[in-house]
Amino acid sequence: MNRLRVVLVAPRNPLNIGAAARAISNFGHSELRLVNPYQVAFREARSAVKSQHVLRDAREYAELAEAVADCALVVGTTSRGPRVLEHPLRRLELGGRLIAKRMATAPVALLFGSEKFGLSNDDLSHCHWLMRIPTREEHGSMNLGQAVAVCLYEIARQPAAARATAERENPAEAKSLERLTLRLEEVLALSGYVHGEGGGSVRLKIRRLIRRMKLDAHDAEVWLGMLRQIRWKLISYNQ
Amino acid sequence: MNRLRVVLVAPRNPLNIGAAARAISNFGHSELRLVNPYQVAFREARSAVKSQHVLRDAREYAELAEAVADCALVVGTTSRGPRVLEHPLRRLELGGRLIAKRMATAPVALLFGSEKFGLSNDDLSHCHWLMRIPTREEHGSMNLGQAVAVCLYEIARQPAAARATAERENPAEAKSLERLTLRLEEVLALSGYVHGEGGGSVRLKIRRLIRRMKLDAHDAEVWLGMLRQIRWKLISYNQ
Repeated sequence: MNRLRVVLVAPRNPLNIGAAARAISNFGHSELRLVNPYQVAFREARSAVKSQHVLRDAREYAELAEAVADCALVVGTTSRGPRVLEHPLRRLELGGRLIAKRMATAPVALLFGSEKFGLSNDDLSHCHWLMRIPTREEHGSMNLGQAVAVCLYEIARQPAAARATAERENPAEAKSLERLTLRLEEVLALSGYVHGEGGGSVRLKIRRLIRRMKLDAHDAEVWLGMLRQIRWKLISYNQ
Repeated sequence: MNRLRVVLVAPRNPLNIGAAARAISNFGHSELRLVNPYQVAFREARSAVKSQHVLRDAREYAELAEAVADCALVVGTTSRGPRVLEHPLRRLELGGRLIAKRMATAPVALLFGSEKFGLSNDDLSHCHWLMRIPTREEHGSMNLGQAVAVCLYEIARQPAAARATAERENPAEAKSLERLTLRLEEVLALSGYVHGEGGGSVRLKIRRLIRRMKLDAHDAEVWLGMLRQIRWKLISYNQ
């Protein structure tokens, strides 16, 4: 993961520099590079409490060309839509995959422009391609710190995790569910919610109701305990 | 997309409230709800310039139960790892899919706790399940505004976009590439880079070199123009 260099070009807001550093730390990358940062902002960001090591190790460059010199792939981020015709433009979903793939073998630079102007045409000319976070166009660009976080999340994202099953870790066994079914039926009969006749179809309904609860083993025991107590109370009142 | 309610519980930093509102706007959601916000922070956030409509329409609640009352699914976010055993815990990749699916038919609440303490156990008890942004655990939690942005990105994410091809829109035709091959060979011969003999294998090398450039139609024309001029100059010097 250490092959990604996050390059901020001319950032002006210390909070954004700090937020970028924090995102780098959160998602396990290590290198922050700054091209021509506003010096007051860089100093302020450095004196903040969080993400010390990323900011302490951040390197400063006068020229973008130097900041990306060791990178085999240089990707610029833009909030402009498909109107940027000089460069191939990719949505983050695809761009993130391509970056993650390339990072496995070579250093990759990911460029973010200044808060106010984004990347200049000169900056863009250093890029192999551009990447766009798919936001609603009518609402303008994202905040710089948030944009860095979203891009680093996509690059670190594990597609396989989305296909994981959402099953309970420890589902209740069928015998617990059946015990619960019988106990609930008994309580409903004792309380007068159901009556003796037509018991067969009632049991089927209760059995399905219990299965729809998708209980885990622990919760099934809890429910059994509650019903046991309610049953005991109902019986003692009936006597 | 308007079925998602982003619920901030007891937020204290106006910048984070503003950042959450901006992310909501960026990703096309509309509802921000605040439970017990620090009043000064809410006022300050409201007086900021960006994301006016989301913040203007933000609703305030005294109790979490009221804030999520109309939601069919309530999901809490946490930075705690799999140690939170009371609730099913899902990674954002999966959780985001489930939320996007449910949003198609019913309102969903996504809860974020206060900057300092996260969601309380009482808050968590209102949740159907919890979701975790897969960050490096040793680096603690994410910034609130960044966490909101990352979650909303995942929910708005289009998996199909990642499978898009990265082809050039308008690739150069083979006849342009062949013209380019011949012209480059000619220039290399005129400049003395290659010599007349062994021309066949040289041409194959150049042909492959040109194909590896993956030129689009426009760039192929540009290269042809440059080589034409170089050839002309070399010929004029040779005379």
